[in-house]
Amino acid sequence: MPESAHHALILLIVFGSAKFLAELFERIRVPGMVGEIFAGLLIGPAVLGWIQPAPFLESLSELGVMFLLFRVGLEVKPAELFGVGKTAMLVAVGGVVLPFLSGWGLMRLFGATQLDGIFMGAALVATSVGITAQVLASRGLLWHKSSQTILGAAVIDDVLGLLVLAVVSGAAKGPLNYGQLATTAFMALFFVAIVGYYGTRAVDALAPAQTKLRIVESEFSVAMVLLFGLSLAAIYVGVAAIVGAFLAGMALSPSAGQRLRDLSSGATELLVPFFLAGIGLKVQVEGLKDPGCLLLCGALLVAAILSKLVGCGICAVGNEMRDRVRIGVGMIPRGEVGMVVAQLGLSMGVLSQIHYAILVAVCVGTTVVAPPLLAIAYRGVEAKGSAAEYPALH
Amino acid sequence: MPESAHHALILLIVFGSAKFLAELFERIRVPGMVGEIFAGLLIGPAVLGWIQPAPFLESLSELGVMFLLFRVGLEVKPAELFGVGKTAMLVAVGGVVLPFLSGWGLMRLFGATQLDGIFMGAALVATSVGITAQVLASRGLLWHKSSQTILGAAVIDDVLGLLVLAVVSGAAKGPLNYGQLATTAFMALFFVAIVGYYGTRAVDALAPAQTKLRIVESEFSVAMVLLFGLSLAAIYVGVAAIVGAFLAGMALSPSAGQRLRDLSSGATELLVPFFLAGIGLKVQVEGLKDPGCLLLCGALLVAAILSKLVGCGICAVGNEMRDRVRIGVGMIPRGEVGMVVAQLGLSMGVLSQIHYAILVAVCVGTTVVAPPLLAIAYRGVEAKGSAAEYPALH
Repeated sequence: MPESAHHALILLIVFGSAKFLAELFERIRVPGMVGEIFAGLLIGPAVLGWIQPAPFLESLSELGVMFLLFRVGLEVKPAELFGVGKTAMLVAVGGVVLPFLSGWGLMRLFGATQLDGIFMGAALVATSVGITAQVLASRGLLWHKSSQTILGAAVIDDVLGLLVLAVVSGAAKGPLNYGQLATTAFMALFFVAIVGYYGTRAVDALAPAQTKLRIVESEFSVAMVLLFGLSLAAIYVGVAAIVGAFLAGMALSPSAGQRLRDLSSGATELLVPFFLAGIGLKVQVEGLKDPGCLLLCGALLVAAILSKLVGCGICAVGNEMRDRVRIGVGMIPRGEVGMVVAQLGLSMGVLSQIHYAILVAVCVGTTVVAPPLLAIAYRGVEAKGSAAEYPALH
Repeated sequence: MPESAHHALILLIVFGSAKFLAELFERIRVPGMVGEIFAGLLIGPAVLGWIQPAPFLESLSELGVMFLLFRVGLEVKPAELFGVGKTAMLVAVGGVVLPFLSGWGLMRLFGATQLDGIFMGAALVATSVGITAQVLASRGLLWHKSSQTILGAAVIDDVLGLLVLAVVSGAAKGPLNYGQLATTAFMALFFVAIVGYYGTRAVDALAPAQTKLRIVESEFSVAMVLLFGLSLAAIYVGVAAIVGAFLAGMALSPSAGQRLRDLSSGATELLVPFFLAGIGLKVQVEGLKDPGCLLLCGALLVAAILSKLVGCGICAVGNEMRDRVRIGVGMIPRGEVGMVVAQLGLSMGVLSQIHYAILVAVCVGTTVVAPPLLAIAYRGVEAKGSAAEYPALH
């Protein structure tokens, strides 16, 4: 089979099965995006084995989550996000301590080594803003104050998670270099703060120049350059590319026209199913059939859910009980950063293959429970902005 | 540098430089897409060497040309295309004989072997519908009867080009299997005819089912499944994926809503620069500095241009002179199929490295001269459908 046929087949199977299961899940009132993750599980090594994780899919998945965060950023007004800034900061910190301790403690309880426990704890720290944002956006809930708090906290959490990762991987390699660590922390927080705060003004200042461009769809072209540029800058300062993508969207959000939103939605709609199915593709179930592993997996999943719910809920000062629950639930899903920690632990020889499989399963588990829980937590909240206007799957 | 940083850097450099040169070229009144090809030439191995052809870029380029043809198909009404069917068929056949003979003859004149000459001739047969479609669409000229003829002829030409390739590569391997060849030819033509003719009816018949879907953006999702499915089917019957992509767009064209057009435009706008810059990336200039090679290259380029212009123009029966010139010019660009022939010839040891480089340069050359020539040929023709409505670069 020629390479091009192979790619076309992958596109068809992954996209087609994701949408097919999304439709099935919607019909039994489960968010469609859970169906898309299950599609990856179904067609991947875990069940049918039709599709294996491959560089081609990984590229599309990477672009997908980048566009997802960009498109979410486009819906977030910087002023509103800064209005909940202090609470978001507290929530993010609250979501680091408890998950880390519970992951580490459980692993130690099950007889794992100190370093093994520390890696598991670190992997449970970072919230996957992508999943939560997808659910909130597709349900028209991004306008709600608690949603803004979740998004802000999740972005800060991503930064904190990568710092924890830096500490942990440093510790695994040998004695820590505190000076270098402080530099990394400072650079990351500085980048987020500066771009978040001044991004919109910079975009506004450059707007007159953009209107003078003669290329067709110049607004979209300039937006893409900003998206790719800030994603790259984010990686260089030590945070994930998606943080830069989110900041690019947010910087453009006050000035973005409908055409930019439509075109970005097109790229997002095409690519996001590859991100979601890609999560399911990474789950390996062979090792998980052992009862002891299943127990550890279940215990870690419960700990991962409760630790964020309680840790973030408690720290969401100035919110009433209902909003504390919403914020806590919104912080549950773990994703990209957790996977990065897992892969690093595996490649460093700290995490065993079986603990790696458990960790991936727990990350996917938190991702799968979040959308239905969010739907329950936000019951009765009015949806604003039609779903068709936002480029997402329920 | 981590993998993700590498990808973000590639995205930024390729997309950014493509749009930058497109803007520069527009300002000196050269179509922007020529600038995007030159951007690939500039950042690629030919000049600066910043970016090398790589699987990641190749994937995006492949998706880009698929979406380009899909988006073009969306603008083509099947009834109008079938209205020019007979002329298109004649034009396509006319565009096979003369280019093949001139490519083969020139190579023999310059002392190449028989097989070498046959490969060069075969490589000059197939018109790249992508480039012409891009120019016609971005200038709002798709409605014109000559444009419809060009598109129809280019699609048939793609099929014929792949048949010539099958003959040639069969001849290089040993005695020809005429039975297998006839089967391939029949399958390919049958596929194009059936999907082209019944595609729209099938889509219309399925439309009521689509409206019952509960997933968000269901029209886009169904369209993508059709796009990937027909692209795959096209490869299986022996033609290029882009032929399937074009047929998918055309099948949807009468019923497609504005939302589907907008979302497809977004994916197209994102991906097409990678296709265009990818053409430039593939040019290697080292071998071309020798005067003899430069002469052969120039002679082949002139022959490639004139043979299509004359061969197709003569066969465009029932058109007045002006339209014959337009059709002839529209058939000039060679692209994907020519590159496929070149790569195959190289890997079979039939084409030398230097003849490979010459062939790629000639393909790119025909691609670069076509947009300005088309702009001249269509001078005075009214543009219909705003450029902003169509997802293309001038």
